[in-house]
Amino acid sequence: MASGNGLLLKADTIADTFRDEVKTALAQCPRAPRLIGILASTSSPSKYYAEFTQKQCDALGVDFVLKKTGAAQNSDLEEGDGVEEAIIEANEDPNVDGIMVYYPIFGVQQDHYLQQIVSPLKDVEGLHFKFHYNLYHNIRFIEPKSLLSPSPQQTGLLPLLDDQPPPGTVKSILPCTPLAVVKCLEYLGVYNRILTYGDRAYGKTVTVINRSEVVGRPLAALLANDGARVFSVDIDSIQEYTKRPHVSPPEPNAEPSSSGEPSSSEAEAAVKARRYHPRHVAHPTKFTLQQCLALSDVVISAVPSPTYKVKTEWLKDGCLCVNVAADKNFEKDVREKASLYLPAVGKVTTLMLLRNLLRLQQYKEIQPDVPQ
Amino acid sequence: MASGNGLLLKADTIADTFRDEVKTALAQCPRAPRLIGILASTSSPSKYYAEFTQKQCDALGVDFVLKKTGAAQNSDLEEGDGVEEAIIEANEDPNVDGIMVYYPIFGVQQDHYLQQIVSPLKDVEGLHFKFHYNLYHNIRFIEPKSLLSPSPQQTGLLPLLDDQPPPGTVKSILPCTPLAVVKCLEYLGVYNRILTYGDRAYGKTVTVINRSEVVGRPLAALLANDGARVFSVDIDSIQEYTKRPHVSPPEPNAEPSSSGEPSSSEAEAAVKARRYHPRHVAHPTKFTLQQCLALSDVVISAVPSPTYKVKTEWLKDGCLCVNVAADKNFEKDVREKASLYLPAVGKVTTLMLLRNLLRLQQYKEIQPDVPQ
Repeated sequence: MASGNGLLLKADTIADTFRDEVKTALAQCPRAPRLIGILASTSSPSKYYAEFTQKQCDALGVDFVLKKTGAAQNSDLEEGDGVEEAIIEANEDPNVDGIMVYYPIFGVQQDHYLQQIVSPLKDVEGLHFKFHYNLYHNIRFIEPKSLLSPSPQQTGLLPLLDDQPPPGTVKSILPCTPLAVVKCLEYLGVYNRILTYGDRAYGKTVTVINRSEVVGRPLAALLANDGARVFSVDIDSIQEYTKRPHVSPPEPNAEPSSSGEPSSSEAEAAVKARRYHPRHVAHPTKFTLQQCLALSDVVISAVPSPTYKVKTEWLKDGCLCVNVAADKNFEKDVREKASLYLPAVGKVTTLMLLRNLLRLQQYKEIQPDVPQ
Repeated sequence: MASGNGLLLKADTIADTFRDEVKTALAQCPRAPRLIGILASTSSPSKYYAEFTQKQCDALGVDFVLKKTGAAQNSDLEEGDGVEEAIIEANEDPNVDGIMVYYPIFGVQQDHYLQQIVSPLKDVEGLHFKFHYNLYHNIRFIEPKSLLSPSPQQTGLLPLLDDQPPPGTVKSILPCTPLAVVKCLEYLGVYNRILTYGDRAYGKTVTVINRSEVVGRPLAALLANDGARVFSVDIDSIQEYTKRPHVSPPEPNAEPSSSGEPSSSEAEAAVKARRYHPRHVAHPTKFTLQQCLALSDVVISAVPSPTYKVKTEWLKDGCLCVNVAADKNFEKDVREKASLYLPAVGKVTTLMLLRNLLRLQQYKEIQPDVPQ
C-alpha cells in the first residue's frame, strides 16, 4: 500500500456483521426483550442517540421504550430531574429487561453515582462497578448470582480454554464502548485467531488516549488482559498495562544463590509461572506520548475535546487509528501514516448494547431464581 | 459581640464530646473492634492522617492495623499498587470489622471505583453508593440486610418521630466528613433542638461550596434533608437544595378555577401535603455566589485549592464559617464578619469514623445471619 493511501473504514460494515447475529438471536426469543432508554437532558447528542437506538431496536425487533424525564420531558423541568426515580422504577418493573441512560447528565461524579443505581441484572451498558471489577480482574465467566453480593468476592480464575463459558456460568457483561472497540479491532485483524483465546492481542502495542472509568481505563485493561502491551495516556501521566512480567535487566553484580543454579525443570517452571500475570498490571512509564506512538500498532483516542489532535507525524507508519470521541481526535491527514482509519465506533456500540441485553436474558435462563 | 471579634473555635473542643461517647461505647464491646487502615500512597497528608488515626485508636482502645501497600510500603513499588487486593483481603477477613482507605490515590474516578469495592458492612467511611443513596433519599433507618441487595430498593420512608431507629433497624452509615460537619453545626447551635427531629435546621440558610460526591453534595443533601435551605455552589453552577415546596409568585392573570375557590379543608390538606418533600429537591438558582453569601447564616467551604478564598466582604454579618478543605478557603480577616470560625473539622471526622465502626458492630448484632 502506498503511503498516504490508508483505508477509511466506516463502522457500518463492522456493525452489519453484529446486526445479523443479534437479529438471529432475537428471533429465537420467546418474546421481544424490553429495553428502556432514559433521556433526562436536552443535549442534542443524547437526543440523537436516543432516536438512533429507537430506530435500531425497531428494525431488529427489540421492544424499546423511551422514557423522558426532566428537561427532556418538559421544558419547565430541570436537566436531570426525575432520572434517579426513573431508574429505580425500571429496576423494579419485571417487564423491563434492560436499562440504558443517556449520559452525560450531571457531570462525571454524580453520573458515576447514578451508574451504580442501575441494577446489574439490567445494566446493558455494563457501567456497574461489579462489571468493571470483573473486567479489571480478567474474570470473564460468572455465575449470575455473584451479582447479588454487596461486594466482589475473591475467586480463583477459571482456566481460559476458549470463549465458551463453563457450565453454570455466563460471560460477564462488558461496558459497551470498550467492547465495541475490541470488536472493531478483531474485525481489523488486530486479534490473531491463531493464538490462544485470552491472549490473541499478544505482540501488539496499543496506545489508548484517555483514562476515564467509562472508556479509557476499561479499554486499556481489556486489551492488556488479551495480551497486548498498552500505553494508557491521560492528561497528567502515561502508564503501561501488561500481563507479561516487567522485565528488568539482570543485575550485573548479582551473586549466584548459595545452592548454585536452579535445576533446569525448576527454572522452566519459574519461567512458565512468570510468563504472565492472570490479569494486567499497571506500571508507570517514562515514555512520552511521542515515544509511545512511535511504537504503537494501534492508536485509539477518546478525548472529549474539539481541539485535541493526535499528531500524524508522530504515528508509526502503517498503524491503525480508531477515533472513539465525538470530536475528531486525529488530524485530517491521518491516512498519510495510518494504514486504516476508523473515524467512529458509535454504530457498533449500540449493537453491543443489544448483545448485552440478550446476554442478560441468559442470566435469567441459567439462574431463574435470581430476583430480577 | 463587637464586629471583628468573631470567635475562633478549635475542632478539639467538639471532638472531646464525641471522644467520651466513643470511649464509653468501646468499653462495653466484648472485644476491641479491629479497624484496618490501608495506606497506598506516599502523600504526606495521608501519612499524617494514618498516624493520627493510629494515635486516636490507641488512646481509645480500637485495634487499629495499618496496612501499607505500594509506594507506602516500599519505594520500589508504585503509588497505589496492591490497594485493591488489600481491600478485598480485608473484606474477606472475619477478624476485620472496619476498613478505611487513605485517599486520594489514583484520582477522583478510579478512587470512586475503589470506594465501591469496600464491603458496605465494613465501610466506616460511608463512601459506598448504598449509603449515599440512603443519604440522598433521606432513608435514615435501615435493616442491615438491605445492604446485601445489588441495587437500592424503593421503600416507603419510615415516619421520623425521633432519632431512635424502630425495632429491627439501625441508622444508616453517613459519610464521615459531611457527618462531622453536621455534628459541628449541632455543637455551634445551628440545629434547633426545640424543632422536630429531622427538621431542626429549618429556618437556616447555608452555602456549601464544592459539590463533589465525597463531601459537597452529601453535605448539602444532609442539611437540606434536615430542613435547611442550602445553596450548593460548584465551579460551574449554583443549585438550591430544599425540602420545602418551591414557591412561585402567583400568576398575576391567573383565572380562578371554574369550580370556584377550594373548600378550606381541601386547601388545608393541600398546604399540609405541600409542606415539604420527604427529601430534598435540587433546583437551579439564578443567585450569584455573592447573593447566596449575603443570605447565608452558615458558610461551609471545601475547595481543594490553596488560592481559592471566600471573600470576607461578601459574608453576612454574624454568620458562621466552617473550613473543610485542607487549604484555608477563608480570608485571614474572616472573623471581621463571621461570629464564629471553625478552621478545620478533621479531628471530628476521625471520631465519626470510629462511631461508624461501632455502628457497623450493631449491624452484626441486629442481624447476625448477615454474612460479614
